[in-house]
Parts: sequence; structure tokens; C-alpha cells
Amino acid sequence: MPHANPHETYSYLGPAGTFTEAALAQVPDAAGKTWHAVNNVGEALEDVVAGRSVAAMIAIENSVEGGVSATQDALASIPGLRIIGEYLVPVNFVLVARPGTMLAAVKVVNAHSVAYAQCHRWLERNLPTHGHIPASSNVAAAASLLDDPAGAADAAIAPPGITAHHDLDVLATDIGDNPNAVTRFVLVSRTVPTPPATGADKTSIIAELPSDQPGALLEMLEQFATRGVNLSLIESRPIGDTLGRYRFVIDLDGHILDERVADALLGLKRFSPKVIFLGSYPRADRVRTEVTHRYGNEVFVEARDWLRGLIAGEPEG
Amino acid sequence: MPHANPHETYSYLGPAGTFTEAALAQVPDAAGKTWHAVNNVGEALEDVVAGRSVAAMIAIENSVEGGVSATQDALASIPGLRIIGEYLVPVNFVLVARPGTMLAAVKVVNAHSVAYAQCHRWLERNLPTHGHIPASSNVAAAASLLDDPAGAADAAIAPPGITAHHDLDVLATDIGDNPNAVTRFVLVSRTVPTPPATGADKTSIIAELPSDQPGALLEMLEQFATRGVNLSLIESRPIGDTLGRYRFVIDLDGHILDERVADALLGLKRFSPKVIFLGSYPRADRVRTEVTHRYGNEVFVEARDWLRGLIAGEPEG
Amino acid sequence: MPHANPHETYSYLGPAGTFTEAALAQVPDAAGKTWHAVNNVGEALEDVVAGRSVAAMIAIENSVEGGVSATQDALASIPGLRIIGEYLVPVNFVLVARPGTMLAAVKVVNAHSVAYAQCHRWLERNLPTHGHIPASSNVAAAASLLDDPAGAADAAIAPPGITAHHDLDVLATDIGDNPNAVTRFVLVSRTVPTPPATGADKTSIIAELPSDQPGALLEMLEQFATRGVNLSLIESRPIGDTLGRYRFVIDLDGHILDERVADALLGLKRFSPKVIFLGSYPRADRVRTEVTHRYGNEVFVEARDWLRGLIAGEPEG
Amino acid sequence: MPHANPHETYSYLGPAGTFTEAALAQVPDAAGKTWHAVNNVGEALEDVVAGRSVAAMIAIENSVEGGVSATQDALASIPGLRIIGEYLVPVNFVLVARPGTMLAAVKVVNAHSVAYAQCHRWLERNLPTHGHIPASSNVAAAASLLDDPAGAADAAIAPPGITAHHDLDVLATDIGDNPNAVTRFVLVSRTVPTPPATGADKTSIIAELPSDQPGALLEMLEQFATRGVNLSLIESRPIGDTLGRYRFVIDLDGHILDERVADALLGLKRFSPKVIFLGSYPRADRVRTEVTHRYGNEVFVEARDWLRGLIAGEPEG
Repeated sequence: MPHANPHETYSYLGPAGTFTEAALAQVPDAAGKTWHAVNNVGEALEDVVAGRSVAAMIAIENSVEGGVSATQDALASIPGLRIIGEYLVPVNFVLVARPGTMLAAVKVVNAHSVAYAQCHRWLERNLPTHGHIPASSNVAAAASLLDDPAGAADAAIAPPGITAHHDLDVLATDIGDNPNAVTRFVLVSRTVPTPPATGADKTSIIAELPSDQPGALLEMLEQFATRGVNLSLIESRPIGDTLGRYRFVIDLDGHILDERVADALLGLKRFSPKVIFLGSYPRADRVRTEVTHRYGNEVFVEARDWLRGLIAGEPEG
Repeated sequence: MPHANPHETYSYLGPAGTFTEAALAQVPDAAGKTWHAVNNVGEALEDVVAGRSVAAMIAIENSVEGGVSATQDALASIPGLRIIGEYLVPVNFVLVARPGTMLAAVKVVNAHSVAYAQCHRWLERNLPTHGHIPASSNVAAAASLLDDPAGAADAAIAPPGITAHHDLDVLATDIGDNPNAVTRFVLVSRTVPTPPATGADKTSIIAELPSDQPGALLEMLEQFATRGVNLSLIESRPIGDTLGRYRFVIDLDGHILDERVADALLGLKRFSPKVIFLGSYPRADRVRTEVTHRYGNEVFVEARDWLRGLIAGEPEG
Repeated sequence: MPHANPHETYSYLGPAGTFTEAALAQVPDAAGKTWHAVNNVGEALEDVVAGRSVAAMIAIENSVEGGVSATQDALASIPGLRIIGEYLVPVNFVLVARPGTMLAAVKVVNAHSVAYAQCHRWLERNLPTHGHIPASSNVAAAASLLDDPAGAADAAIAPPGITAHHDLDVLATDIGDNPNAVTRFVLVSRTVPTPPATGADKTSIIAELPSDQPGALLEMLEQFATRGVNLSLIESRPIGDTLGRYRFVIDLDGHILDERVADALLGLKRFSPKVIFLGSYPRADRVRTEVTHRYGNEVFVEARDWLRGLIAGEPEG
Repeated sequence: MPHANPHETYSYLGPAGTFTEAALAQVPDAAGKTWHAVNNVGEALEDVVAGRSVAAMIAIENSVEGGVSATQDALASIPGLRIIGEYLVPVNFVLVARPGTMLAAVKVVNAHSVAYAQCHRWLERNLPTHGHIPASSNVAAAASLLDDPAGAADAAIAPPGITAHHDLDVLATDIGDNPNAVTRFVLVSRTVPTPPATGADKTSIIAELPSDQPGALLEMLEQFATRGVNLSLIESRPIGDTLGRYRFVIDLDGHILDERVADALLGLKRFSPKVIFLGSYPRADRVRTEVTHRYGNEVFVEARDWLRGLIAGEPEG
């Protein structure tokens, strides 16, 4: 990529045609810029850290499979990053084959393991005796049919738009087991000042528990509950040094500039040996966060004024 | 008291010889000043509010009888006051009578009801058939024996020093049921700026629960627990408008200028419809508060610096 | 009382005319039986323990003054008792004097200290310079005016019905500061099997905290909160051996035969070094306890059946 | 497998040489029986449900990668199963190639994606420009080198014992990034009565939260914390119907026949709309669970006896 302007480049898990590309297509600023297809999330984030890209689009959660471990672990270990946007892409699959193939003739299916898992019931019903060959991406699975005409696989699971890129026959559509399946993507840049709150924001963090003490997770959750902060995602990931040590990947409703969120983060920081702040950013669904009066910004400001008055010896009331 | 200088006057529950006077004798600043004996805690506090006294000494808790309701309720309803010191007085009683009286001849005992309750087992053992006449103070009980020579009472329960003031015979000493009984007094002034923390401080507050909702008390206590603030006293007092509505009188270990205490007070203020701050003051026993590292002042300062950096977009770590 | 049948005798704080007598008058079973007036709660309970009375009526809480310490402490220290009923008596006071006395002439008021406290604002407004002589009961205060015609007191605070018993003039009615003031009484018998639940029940217990550890009260309250049991009363009382050690007097909504209450009591028993069960009894106000489905009896029974099936190796579902 | 006796057959993720086979080799009862290699965890569990195998060995957690999603989801959706044993296998990898290959010549590595992730740092250091081809198992990766001599891959990541089965050269040993990496396996049978507790037991469950209400996870954790039950694993898995709905996979210290565990399970069952009990079984590491006196079996039995006595009206104490 010698001539690309890093301020004009966006990295994403390629090749063209992946769901990640569909997510990137939702970003107005990325229109007309250079899109750099990479092979995995680590490469995408390294492009950002190294300054080769202004931002990277990466999958972070799937409604069927859960959090994307590779993304979560990469965000936990690579410093200097910030999530600046969230995007949702409906997940939908087709079964494709070389031109002329009949469904009944399919014996071996090439598919990325996550896609394969999401079509498991359909395959069991329609191809009960099939075999599976794993692929590195959904698009690669489809491409391999043409690249390796003598290969063992005679069909592949791919995104619906695949036929725009490859000369393949669609044997079946909507083969995903869950028609509402959706994948959540985040756009990640280098560390930048926090954007203003919009009222419909999400904040992502990763936190380690102080030790293996009973009740540590409970105590961590209380940091949020006592400030009226709702968690929309909480996943444990092994820290990796030994069984039984976890970090937690957390999404919470609200923005670091919301008083209740800032206070919860302060409490969490004091409690946890390691907190990684991944960013506050507008929610993909634009749903505004409902905050009860008790946790409103003005209540925090009033309380601080009250405390200041007490210390100064001003009369109460 | 027309000529007394209010800056030189201390109010206390009299008359001379009471335990309250013994508490006032522990105050170095009060030595050589005017001591104004009053009849009840309300009068003492009104002297302070009206500027007739610089401070008032009042009993706030007894190790046997518990919190002094009249004091707690007065502090909850009279604004503009601050506790500035705490004093402990061992509670010890003698049985006194007119000169020449024999113990076996005692039929009716005059005593303040709290003192009477604290000597109940001794009286049951030694004067199983005695009657009781209530008195307005321990010293008044003793004085009444001489003031009313034909009165029904032929003995009184009084503090040990009573014979210095009155010509009475001591029939028995140490008649309190609990040899370790102690009464806790506080010195109360008008609202003043908070004194600096000494490391061995106590903070007194009164807080109402937001409503009769289940779990409100639990939630209030969590404001302290999640900041590592220990409570040395918690008592409920009816607000008085209807059965089942309470305010809570709370003493906690630490000073309003301790970060963890300030943070707990902020949380409490946001939660409770009414919080009365009575003051942060040195503990009578001078025992320093042990604070685990997690709740130390520096941890709060570091967390705020961290949050500020996140918002500004500074690199972590 | 040599000839009284203990199964026919009820003890109460006398003399005739007290609020306690008014409470006893609400008990259908006590109609036409012997009513034994005693001088204090200890005597009343000892009548029950010794078998001299079938039950005793005692005041346990006042909407203005709070829990009655003497009653709470007596119930905590005398074993073998059960609360079997709850009664509410509106608290209302009149000011009485010897026939011919004018209100303006009143200088000294005789009154039980609790009654005196409840009329404090009225007295301040109408008799700003009065003195106070404490009495052992409201009725005794009134009676003393006639017993001691030359006594210092020239008026007394008494219950409204006092003129039925004594030839006194009523100088003012409704002098209580709170028109909704009410006192709660309980009828106490020896330990008996628990009566069936009525759906509108209350359970009274006294529990000590396991130690002075921070958070012990919080943990005790969680025993109730995690079973959906609401507390209508919680009061701390010093255990009495040293400052800072408390027991808690608790009233909770529900009956020991309600599954959620039984489960909470089991949790409390395992947690607390000492739990005293005072009884489950119908509420005075007959308000039924609302229980969310989650805490209904059938949910507890189903869960136990499920657990039994798991252990036996039965298929789930 | 027409002639195999199902009581003599164990299913496992094959082929021979996998870590799963190493786990099965730790089961004394499996020695000398038929071992049936299958392709994935679903097949293994279906063998058990259908009665073709007496038990299946499946991987459930990896110290580096975390819970095995496929296993967790299969256990959540297939009824009629019980975990009856736990086994740990150290995870260690070698890089193998066709005979005569030099490390410097390796361009493309075939590897199962989990194994590949665990050797990522070694590969980056030693083969910075390599490509990756995913395989369905570690052993299959190695076998493919010989099966497809003209294939793109010229090396594979495999378990150390691979050379016993295949004629391959070992280019490097101990290439895993974490020398302490270990995989946890469980042996799963059809539902059977619970075995007796050994004192060193683990219990596995899967529970759904009652709804998306804030604090539901906190409340679930309190079911364990209030009974002194420690969690050694908690992982969220999407239920799969919509983003934001989770079930939790939980391992706890103790046995369903331990009173504290049984009580926590009852609490959980009452709280959660769906609880799946996967079994209580001896821990692989045989470490006994430390239980504070407060949560010991005898404390639960005593509390029940106490409650029974209260209801019957027996005297306390």
C-alpha cells in the first residue's frame, strides 16, 4: 500500500463481500476512501496503531455465537485504541456451488466455522451426511470452489452478495438457523479525545477482577448497580496465564461524560487492578438511554455543591 | 445570664455533679469559662443556636440504654449545628440517703429512669420490694431527699461525686449492673468550617430513606460498604408522621475530608431525600481508622487523574 | 391475686385508664376475664412466664417516640414468650387539673416523660414558662393531683378517658403534637405452637450481628431481600456489654409458615450468633401481604421437587 | 459400529492422537473398552443420548482461549446428560513437516484455529511471513501433509505424540505461547443419580437470567454469595434469539448434596426462568473445598431443627 494516504485508508476483514465490508459501507466518512482488506483482526488493529489506517472495522459480537474472542483479546492487549462507532449487519447466508451442481450432490461443505455453526440445523436437515472443511473467511470458502476445481468441497456457505464477485450458483438462500441473527461491528481508531455525549451512547471497557476472591465479580457489578448504570454486555475471557483467572468485557449504557458513568468508572478503577477504556460512542440503534432522576447529571452536581458547602461550614438547606 | 460572654459560656445538662458536667470537665477550652446548667438537651442546643453559648455538651449514647432519643431528635430538627468533639464518661452509680438511713430501711428509690434501668438487677437483689419515683436528673433525685424531708423517697441513685455537693450518706457504691457502662457525649457548636482530619475521626449524620420501598435500607448501607466506610453506630428513629417511616442516625469511621467518606456522602446525598451532616470530629478514644489501600486518598486521586486522561484522549498506562 | 385463675387473667400496665388498658379492651378473649394492672413491662412478662397470667399486653412501638426500649430489652432477655396479637391505639392527650384551676394559672405539669415529649410543642406555645415533674404513668400523673393536694404540680397530661375515673377538670383536649400518633401494642403469651397464617401476618424477631465486622448489617438485610421479605421495623438496641455492639429488633411482613419467611429465618439463623423468634401473628391493620410470584409458596415447593429430581437422576423438564 | 457394546464404548473427538484422546486415557473405566472417534462435540453427545456410547469425553475450557462455545451450547440444548468426571490435559504443541523439510522453508502452516491462536507469538517470531490454512483438528492438520503431498501447506501444528502415528519430522517443540496452557475436559453420560460428595467436587450449571432487567446478573450472583458458594467459572453465552440475551455457564465449588450448594440451587431455581443442572463430580485436581463453619452442612441441619422447633412451639435454647 505504498501510495495510500493513511488518513484516507480504512482497514477491514476482507476480501470484498464480507459482512465486515457491509459494515464499513455504513460509515459516511469512509465513502470514497481507500478500503484495505486484511486477513484478521490483529492486522486491522496494527494498521491503526502503526498509522497506516485512520480506522479499522472489526466484528465484536454475534447474536448467535456471542463475543468475538479474537477481537476482545486483541482490544485487551493492544494499547492506544478507541472505539468510535458501532454498526449492525444482519447475518444471512446462502449455499453456493460451482455452476451446474445440484443440491442433492453436495457431499462436502467449505465454510468459516462461525458461519458453519449458524447454519448447522439447516445442513442437518438438508444434507444430513455432509462433511465440513473449515475456511478462513466466508468469502474465501466460496472462492476456493473456483480456485481449486478438483478440491474436496463441492459447496460453500457465503454471504448473499457473493455472486456479484464470483461466478457461482446459489443452491439455497436464507440457510441461517436464526432469521434475526445480526453481527455487531465497531470502528476503531487511535486514542482520541472523547466525543460529546449524544444521549444514545454506549461505553466499552475491559476490566480484571482484583483476585480470585469469592464475590469479586459481585462487587464489580455493584459499582455499576449503585450508580444506575445498565450493562448491555458482559463476557468473561481468560487472562490466559492460568485456569480460573478472567477479565471481563463490558458494554454499558451511557457516555463517560455522563456523571453516573464517570462515577462508576472511578469506582471500577479503584477496585480493579486493570481497567481498559475502549471508548464512548453513539449506539448503532440510536436508542436513547433512560436515566431515572436519581442518576441524572444535575443530581451529581447538586451533591458536589452540597458537600463543598458542608466543608466550608455554610448553613444547610 | 445577662453579663455572661457567649464566647465564654458552655451549656450542659445540670445541675452540678451530673455526668454531663464530668464530660465538660474534659474540654480544655472550657476550663475557666462560664458553665451554664440547663434542664434538657433542647435548652442546651437553643443556647447555641441563639448565640448565648459557644457550645453545648450533650449525651448522645449510652452503652446500656442505647442512643439518647431526645438528643438524636433534637439534632435532626434544629438546623445550624455541628458536633466538634466527643467525650466518654464511665457510668457509675451510688445509692444515697438522708444521714442515718440504713439500707434495709429503704422502701422507695428516687432515680432518673435511665439510671434506674441501669441499676435494676442490683435493686432487685438488694431491695426486692422497693418502689420507684422517677426524677428529672440523677442529681435532682439526690437533692430531692434533702429538699423534701417528708417525701416518699428514702433513697436516690446518684453519680459518685454527689457527696461533694450534698450532705448525704452513701449506702452502696458501684450499683450499676454493668461495670463497663459508659456514656458518650458530644460537644456541639454552631455550623463552622470542617476542622482538618486527624486520622482518628468520626463523622455523624442523619439520613432519611427515600420511601418505604423494600431494600431501601440495604441500598443506603451499600453506599458505605462500596467505599469501605465502617459504621460504628446505626439507629433508627421514627420520623414521627406515621408508623413505619424512619430516619437513621449514623456514626461512621473517618472524616468528611477523607476521600472515601466524601464519596460515600455524595452517594448518600444522591440517594436520600434528606441528609443532615452533624460534623466530623476527633474520636474520644483517639483510635486511628485503619483504611485498606483500596480506599486510601491516593487511590481516589489517581482514579480521577485516570478519568481526566481518558476524556482528554491521553494514552493509557 | 390469690384466687385469680391464671387462665383467666391478663396483665397490663395499669392503672385503669391507660392506653394499655384500651389495647386490652380490643381483645375479644379478654372480655369478662380478670385484668391485672402491673407497674412495668418486666412485671407483666414475669406474670406470663410464672403462669400467673395467660397473657400480657405491652406497648412495643410509638409512632412518635419509636420502639419502647424497655419492652424490646425485656423480650430480648426473657425466654419462653410468644407474641400472639397486635393492637393499635390512637394516642391522644388532655390536660387536666384539680377542679376550679384555670389554664393560665398552671405552673408545673406532671406527666410521664413519653407523653410529655409528645405534647412538647403545645406546652411551649400555651404554657411557655411551665416546669415538668415526671410520673411513672399517664394515669398516675393525673391521680397525683388529687392524692397530693399540696403538691407542686397543678396540672397533668392524661388519656382522654381519665375523667371517668377521677374528679378532674379538663383544661384542654387534643394537646398531642401529632394528631395521627398511635401506639402499637402486642399481646404476649408463653411459647405456643405457631398459629396458621392468615395472609395478613407479621413476624417479630430479635437478632444479633455475628461481630463488629464491616458490612454485617448489610449481610443480615440481604437474608431478607434475597427472599423478597419486607421489613416494617428495624431498630438497633445496644447489647449492653460494650459500646458498638448491637442487636436488632425486626418486624417483617409475613408468617413463619410462609415459605419465603421460613427460608429467610433459616438464612438468618445460620448467619447470626443469636436469633430470638418472638412470634408470627395477625397484623392489627389486617392488610394482606402482597407477594410477587417469584416468592410464592408454590415456587419454593417446585424448586424443592426439582432439586429432589436432580439428585435422584430423574430426567429434567 | 454395528457390533460394539454401548456399555463398552466411549466417544471422543478424534482422530487418535488428539488431546481429547489423552483425556480419555485418564479414565480407568475406559481402559480396554471401545473408543469411538467422532468429528465434533455434537456427534459425541448424540452417541450418548442415543445409547450408542456409555459416555463421551469433550473439551469444555481452555486456559488460553476460554470456554469452548460449541460444548457449552450443546450442553445447553441437549437434555438428558450429566457430567460425571473432569480431566486436565496440558496443552503443548510441536511444528511438524514432511520428512526433509527445513524450518526456514516453511511458508504455509496448517492448523486448527485454536491451536494456531495459541502458537501465534512463536510463529510471528520464527515464521514472520507464513500463511495459515485452517484444519478441523490438530491431528487432521498433520495428517493432511501426508495425505496431500502437493498441498499448499508445508508444515502443521500438532500434539507432541503425533510422530507415533505419522511419519513426520518435528521442526520445533514447545511452540505454544503459554507453557502452562491446559485444557479441561469433561466426561458426559446420560442422566444418572448424583454420586456421593467427595469433599473435592465441582458442580456445573447453565442458567438464564429472568429478563433484561438491570441488576439481574448481580441478583443471580447473590444467590451464591449469600450461601458462601465460590464460582470457579462464569461465562456468558448468547441465547441466540436476539442481541443482549444471555445464559450463563457456571462452575461452582461443591456438590449438590452439600447443603450450601443445594440451598443456592434452590434460590437460583426460584430466580431463573431456566436452570440446567449438568452434574456434580470430583474435581480433576482433587483439591478439597474449604468451607467456613457458617456454611457447613451441620449449620444447615441445626437451622432446620431450630425452625421446626419454633413452629411446634418448643422452648428455645
